[in-house]
Amino acid sequence: MKKAVVIVSGGMDSVTLAHFYAKNGFELSLLSFNYGQRHAKEIQFAAACAERLGAEHRVVDLSSLRSLLPGSALTDDIEVPDGHYAAENMKVTVVPNRNAIMLAVAWGHAVAIGAEVVAFGAHGGDHFIYPDCRPEFYRAAGLAFAIGSEGFGDPGLHLEAPFINMGKHDIAAMGAELGVPFEETWSCYKGGDLHCGTCGTCVERKEAFRLAGLQDPTVYEVMP
Amino acid sequence: MKKAVVIVSGGMDSVTLAHFYAKNGFELSLLSFNYGQRHAKEIQFAAACAERLGAEHRVVDLSSLRSLLPGSALTDDIEVPDGHYAAENMKVTVVPNRNAIMLAVAWGHAVAIGAEVVAFGAHGGDHFIYPDCRPEFYRAAGLAFAIGSEGFGDPGLHLEAPFINMGKHDIAAMGAELGVPFEETWSCYKGGDLHCGTCGTCVERKEAFRLAGLQDPTVYEVMP
Repeated sequence: MKKAVVIVSGGMDSVTLAHFYAKNGFELSLLSFNYGQRHAKEIQFAAACAERLGAEHRVVDLSSLRSLLPGSALTDDIEVPDGHYAAENMKVTVVPNRNAIMLAVAWGHAVAIGAEVVAFGAHGGDHFIYPDCRPEFYRAAGLAFAIGSEGFGDPGLHLEAPFINMGKHDIAAMGAELGVPFEETWSCYKGGDLHCGTCGTCVERKEAFRLAGLQDPTVYEVMP
Repeated sequence: MKKAVVIVSGGMDSVTLAHFYAKNGFELSLLSFNYGQRHAKEIQFAAACAERLGAEHRVVDLSSLRSLLPGSALTDDIEVPDGHYAAENMKVTVVPNRNAIMLAVAWGHAVAIGAEVVAFGAHGGDHFIYPDCRPEFYRAAGLAFAIGSEGFGDPGLHLEAPFINMGKHDIAAMGAELGVPFEETWSCYKGGDLHCGTCGTCVERKEAFRLAGLQDPTVYEVMP
């Protein structure tokens, strides 16, 4: 059985991604990263996803990087901005080189377990803010890692980012088809008991369901 | 003053590398990685190097990756092989994708502090065993990271591996010119009180001094 290492944060995109690879017949190894983000609430939803799919799940503790990679509201004491996700002020949510670090670790794990695929859930809506969510980044990274591990692991090992040219509403639509329980996913950057409904990712989440014509099962503090 | 992030293990190559960038007028930020290797002895020598050069030094704890990246004698309970470094049996010392992970973290730190250079000490003698020490790897990785952090950090940030086409004896010769105190560096994979003199890196260390026509200041358990 082919193996895939899937990076799952517990958000709706990455949980849909895991369901997508499960549906396509892969044996899954799910990886979540704790990089010192303010809350680890979403990781519970990654664990729930793994249990649902009968997959292995590991949490990689990279919290020691927090002091090394300062300057992000996701890890530091800067206030998480409200407003639309694509806005300029969301730049403060960038953790320098985060995806490269996560992908490099996931690739190492894939080499170790003989997986064929490392998958991550970057999508079209992320391109504006995060350069490490762009297609040219993941292609270049996949090439570099393949060169760097030549002769080790599965010779066909490669990166996949199947949502890279999709909008978040396309992912919502695909997730609905795959039967993803969206109430078992977490988007909010603020990490309260409920989704806040006002931060960039909450705004984007609401919009995705609306554009996909789906019922949004999320309970927000500030309802649409 | 230009800044360089230099990956320093505490071995003779990386310590020479740090002296090289100090001599070239860079403000240095030295990074050492604890990736669950059997001994952290060499990290003391990285710290001593930082003190000597008046540089910042940070130890990045990646020991949580140990269970994720199994299969290496450097981190697992496989016996470290004796014999020449370039031999096939040294393949057990490979930690999957290790350099990509370290470089990705170092790049993130460089973005955060506005450094122009990320430097690492891969050299010609490493190419045979470690694909992530080859020139084509570090070029591809540097390109991927630059794409992934476009718009953040110093726009001229790039990877350098000035020893990539040098032999270890060339590095020894350069270190001698730079006044590197080689007795304050550590190579042995076994991590005893003295260099063992028989493991791959000890054999290579002895050879480097001999080929460079230098006095080897190292005290080995098994002297040449």
